[in-house]
Amino acid sequence: MSYQSSVAQDSLAAAQLEMAGNPNALALRRPFDPVAHDLEASFRLTRFADLKGRSCKVPQDVLGKLVESLQQDYSQEQDQFMHVAIPRIGIGLDCSVTPLRHGGLCLVQTTDFFYPLVDDPYMMGKIACANVLSDLYAMGVTECDNMLMLLGVSTKMTEKERDVVIPLIMRGFKDSALEAGTSVTGGQTVINPWCTIGGVATTICQPNEYIVPDNAVMGDVLVLTKPLGTQVAVNAHQWLDQPERWNRIKLVVSEEDVRKAYHRAMDSMSRLNRIAARLMHKYNAHGSTDVTGFGLLGHAQNLASHQKNEVSFVIHNLPVIAKMAAVAKACGNMFQLLQGHAPETSGGLLICLPREQAAAYCKDIEKQEGYQAWIIGIVEKGNRTARIIDKPRVIEVPAKD
Amino acid sequence: MSYQSSVAQDSLAAAQLEMAGNPNALALRRPFDPVAHDLEASFRLTRFADLKGRSCKVPQDVLGKLVESLQQDYSQEQDQFMHVAIPRIGIGLDCSVTPLRHGGLCLVQTTDFFYPLVDDPYMMGKIACANVLSDLYAMGVTECDNMLMLLGVSTKMTEKERDVVIPLIMRGFKDSALEAGTSVTGGQTVINPWCTIGGVATTICQPNEYIVPDNAVMGDVLVLTKPLGTQVAVNAHQWLDQPERWNRIKLVVSEEDVRKAYHRAMDSMSRLNRIAARLMHKYNAHGSTDVTGFGLLGHAQNLASHQKNEVSFVIHNLPVIAKMAAVAKACGNMFQLLQGHAPETSGGLLICLPREQAAAYCKDIEKQEGYQAWIIGIVEKGNRTARIIDKPRVIEVPAKD
Repeated sequence: MSYQSSVAQDSLAAAQLEMAGNPNALALRRPFDPVAHDLEASFRLTRFADLKGRSCKVPQDVLGKLVESLQQDYSQEQDQFMHVAIPRIGIGLDCSVTPLRHGGLCLVQTTDFFYPLVDDPYMMGKIACANVLSDLYAMGVTECDNMLMLLGVSTKMTEKERDVVIPLIMRGFKDSALEAGTSVTGGQTVINPWCTIGGVATTICQPNEYIVPDNAVMGDVLVLTKPLGTQVAVNAHQWLDQPERWNRIKLVVSEEDVRKAYHRAMDSMSRLNRIAARLMHKYNAHGSTDVTGFGLLGHAQNLASHQKNEVSFVIHNLPVIAKMAAVAKACGNMFQLLQGHAPETSGGLLICLPREQAAAYCKDIEKQEGYQAWIIGIVEKGNRTARIIDKPRVIEVPAKD
Repeated sequence: MSYQSSVAQDSLAAAQLEMAGNPNALALRRPFDPVAHDLEASFRLTRFADLKGRSCKVPQDVLGKLVESLQQDYSQEQDQFMHVAIPRIGIGLDCSVTPLRHGGLCLVQTTDFFYPLVDDPYMMGKIACANVLSDLYAMGVTECDNMLMLLGVSTKMTEKERDVVIPLIMRGFKDSALEAGTSVTGGQTVINPWCTIGGVATTICQPNEYIVPDNAVMGDVLVLTKPLGTQVAVNAHQWLDQPERWNRIKLVVSEEDVRKAYHRAMDSMSRLNRIAARLMHKYNAHGSTDVTGFGLLGHAQNLASHQKNEVSFVIHNLPVIAKMAAVAKACGNMFQLLQGHAPETSGGLLICLPREQAAAYCKDIEKQEGYQAWIIGIVEKGNRTARIIDKPRVIEVPAKD
């Protein structure tokens, strides 16, 4: 590990500029303005990578083939841990769960990293942290014991750009970790052509603190806790700078709509799924996953494939950030949003809940956080697959004021 | 986290080709031959990044400034953990150590990733894993509970190259983890311009399982468990393909020497520091660090700066892979090897040992592993710095047969 200590105050100053002098006054936070940091007005963090967010992922089928060499000793490893009652689970789920040498405890762990998808470095840090933590929350784990940060500083950044942007990303990451009741104790920073940002989240817990996501039963319903369309929104926002792209969508959306959707997306991506996870225990969730790089349907299918019972998931409703369904349609099949394949970053939890508890779950999360959750589908008898019905209902989710 | 399951067998086949059909017969393993995998004879893994190994690191001073934003809440976090007796240590050391909610245990954790520095993908995987684990070993922790793997697949690789190389890297990483008594339960794989490889190592342990590296006393000696010169060796080996570079060093070294040094370096970098760590407990080590990206002196200085007592480190001897000191000299000041600044990858442990125990430590490690360790310096009264004497003795370390 490679963080070294030092006493320079520059990065703190940079962060405080963002916070209007008050590190705790997030509500008062000004949006990132490159000029206020002596950078060119045209500076865009998202230009330091050719891929964005979760679309950087190696395709699901290719990855499956590549990790085969990890899979094959799987049963062996299970034997090795036969003296403990906890099954060794991990590959294919959101987190790995490893039984420990110490009485009854297990290690729940996840890692994730990707490329900038918003231009505000502080928000990018928050989103990256929320995204890493989301894998823990998907397993119902609400406490994170430690985080590490993984950073790649782009070779194409000037020194000045680096000294402005990297401390802000770090600060955003760290603030999000604090909000989650954890902290960042180390990490690794390298030089890389593309800017990269990610981390590791680790929890040591009792088996009752996590929910093995394999227990869906016929009659359950599916709840989604954040709207879809984050990738469409960040792309549409970038197109405001690119007339030939903008012309493709300007008939269905205004500049104002796009800005609102972009801010709604940033707000959504930086929101922790922690309360969503806590309420899973209260309302007896049968399993959950978070919606990220493989899109709603990709993750639904993965969750379905892990079920003990012979069930399938059918999705009827698609909550989408306002106007983004129209933008996606105007772009032809490019995003595959309504087909369920559009990658999301730091998306919501997709949760299997007993039918009689789902409405209370949605009401409770809205009461606690002020954000809606939606019942989007049902669990029926089937062969462990998932599908979206032919003409799903699109629920337009407006920007929050 | 994003590993998805699948049943394809291609990667296994690729790995078995490397293992001559027997995954356990490492001794019989053939060196990587691109042609045997239907790749071009000119295929070189190291061409998929412009930087190699630890030289990819953000410079020590720059990094210090960047992580300032993590440092500042440090004292706060200590308060928060005042109810436990374990100090919160981490940033600046090889691992982070976090007290846990569960009786007396702590979480010891580290992460590292970098770029290919050898052309054999399987060996690259082993080296990356040994390098990550080394941070645990530097703290005297000998058991690793879990590993995650971090991979970047180069955008410049053909599909064929990817399908050959990535499973081999994964297999090497995994085999090294098994050798260390641990396993890889997940990770993240992304597409990136440069090929990247790294991981996360995590242990949950009792406080007596790790050694806080701050206890050096006057009269201690410094022991180093691996020779220096890995970066010089991998560079010299690449220069065999580059006549204009090769001409600069061919007067001081033969092609055969370079090949031997390269294999010695690979062997050394893929060797675990686990026994070195175990023996630290037996011989009452006062602290240790592993020698990696900041070179012997950089890490010695960092270790010195963390000491409780007013001590300094003075280094007299530099064990170097045979002929690599001559190569470094022939390249002018480029590597800064004899100045202690040449980056190493998966280098040895630099250990402060009571003078009367050091010889026994060295003898024991040689008996158990067949590798020499060296007493390279002393701990004297001072202001927590480290230096190499004016004309250090260079110990030529031959290739193992």
